[in-house]
Amino acid sequence: MRMLINTADTVVADALRGMAAAHPDLDVDVENRLVVRRDAREGGRVGLVSGGGSGHEPLHGGFVGYGMLSAACPGEVFTSPVPDQMLRAAGAVDSGQGVLFVVKNYTGDVLNFQMAAELAEDDGLRVEQVLVNDDVAVTDSLYTAGRRGTGGTLFVEKIAGAAAEEGAPLDRVAAIARQVNESSRSFGVALSACTTPAKGSPTFDLPDGELELGIGIHGEPGRERRAMMTSREIAEFAVGAVLEDLARSGPADAPVLALVNGMGATPLLELYGFHAEVARVLEARGVPVARSLVGNYVTSLDMAGCSVTLCRADDELLRLWDAPVQTAALRWGR
Amino acid sequence: MRMLINTADTVVADALRGMAAAHPDLDVDVENRLVVRRDAREGGRVGLVSGGGSGHEPLHGGFVGYGMLSAACPGEVFTSPVPDQMLRAAGAVDSGQGVLFVVKNYTGDVLNFQMAAELAEDDGLRVEQVLVNDDVAVTDSLYTAGRRGTGGTLFVEKIAGAAAEEGAPLDRVAAIARQVNESSRSFGVALSACTTPAKGSPTFDLPDGELELGIGIHGEPGRERRAMMTSREIAEFAVGAVLEDLARSGPADAPVLALVNGMGATPLLELYGFHAEVARVLEARGVPVARSLVGNYVTSLDMAGCSVTLCRADDELLRLWDAPVQTAALRWGR
Repeated sequence: MRMLINTADTVVADALRGMAAAHPDLDVDVENRLVVRRDAREGGRVGLVSGGGSGHEPLHGGFVGYGMLSAACPGEVFTSPVPDQMLRAAGAVDSGQGVLFVVKNYTGDVLNFQMAAELAEDDGLRVEQVLVNDDVAVTDSLYTAGRRGTGGTLFVEKIAGAAAEEGAPLDRVAAIARQVNESSRSFGVALSACTTPAKGSPTFDLPDGELELGIGIHGEPGRERRAMMTSREIAEFAVGAVLEDLARSGPADAPVLALVNGMGATPLLELYGFHAEVARVLEARGVPVARSLVGNYVTSLDMAGCSVTLCRADDELLRLWDAPVQTAALRWGR
Repeated sequence: MRMLINTADTVVADALRGMAAAHPDLDVDVENRLVVRRDAREGGRVGLVSGGGSGHEPLHGGFVGYGMLSAACPGEVFTSPVPDQMLRAAGAVDSGQGVLFVVKNYTGDVLNFQMAAELAEDDGLRVEQVLVNDDVAVTDSLYTAGRRGTGGTLFVEKIAGAAAEEGAPLDRVAAIARQVNESSRSFGVALSACTTPAKGSPTFDLPDGELELGIGIHGEPGRERRAMMTSREIAEFAVGAVLEDLARSGPADAPVLALVNGMGATPLLELYGFHAEVARVLEARGVPVARSLVGNYVTSLDMAGCSVTLCRADDELLRLWDAPVQTAALRWGR
């Protein structure tokens, strides 16, 4: 246990107290586990609500703010938030224009957001949902029927958030969110397991000198385990898997947004080195990189490793990607 | 070895290639190891140059851009850059207004920046230097005579960078940088050692269940080793050490900028929880927190742990802190 915590039980509440202290522009409800943009109901915008298990920070709380999420519902570590959180979040952000739930495809999240959507509709709110399932590594996994939602979530939240900020109506915001998800593919690699506060020991066993290809963000098993590969080999494998899948739904040479994402414990020095290899593979395959983002955005506690997400971006998605954003973890242009 | 690299020899060059690919607004010279703001010589500003061993990313390359550094010189991992890099950087950013070198207090960096300053002055450039030595943990260390430069570097680079961006002359930018350094104190804690690519094994031995108080950013020994402490206990200890030292040079109840910095492998979830404890200690001691920053900014490869830096900020420093900045790792207000 090499953790900077008080107790395993208070990890999420402690982090929320810290967010409240660090970000006065956020309305953080520690008791009810909500992070809400303070001006969420101003301006008559569509509300964007997401959430999921904690341990993936800055996702989702770090993406609450101008031009991105209206609110986030953090669950316990690697555990879905409950419908009551989502319902409360919807109520806190709805200004009469309706609310979009951004739901990563994990069984618990899907069920709980569905229940919250039904309860919210009973209360007279208009709710749409978009399911994020961008991970091409495996079809079904330990926690999912179908593909997992991983790095693509950042693209969905940023781009749909920009549309909402501009005043797009609910149907349009939901359609853009779905387009982004359908245009996004991810592949992740673990160089080490992660350790949850509750368990206190690594979630799986990965011997030194091996890596797991196609890992999820909770330490779910991937496609295969191999002897350690170079950064260049990993990039070839991961980008290859992503592009192969992406080509099934559109032109292979369309410009992409590229996210090189750290799982938590891999130094930024290494992530940039990996990004160089990702860019090299994309160039060799004739795929133009319109924008790049490198850093720890959709993490898995202290797991070493990385993921690559590519999002095929037309001019409109690119314009929305470039639009101003001001959150704890992502900011530009304002 | 759980590293996302090609070879130990190419780690820094690979990362620079990645920075070049990710940040088209930076002029990255992979061969000569320079990261330069593309518009560094426009606007007739004072140039701000820093650098140091790699492995502390996003420091310094991630802080090059509008309102912060004009250029950064990355050395090999945990190794000072050479005078030729600094000289080249000075030449690349000087627009006739002179150049300020921001130097962390490590023996190699100090010697090499001094030599570069002399060579630059021989070439007719005006050069000032500011030494950053904010770490209160130990007086002398493995790599320093006097205190080490750690998290305070971020405050120096941001605030002096804002002054330079506004057009302040060299003397003034240097004076502000010195004021920020003299107003900043840091204390770091390691929960694990880090592993350099060249060595491939942890830089020191820290048994599970123990932590090292007062660690440096290269795995230098700290003040003492103890059995694992809670986040709250660590905050009490670290903030106490920082405040005790800070009180020697000014009022104990002045507002501060607070940086809760991750060393690389500690999850953001834990850093926010730790920030809550830091904020609690400061409140209990009557120290107002004017601004907070939480995240991985001055890292030590894959070390688990954190540091706290406090900077006593008058209205002018606060205004400069709030001024727009647009770099890879720090951006706001523009």
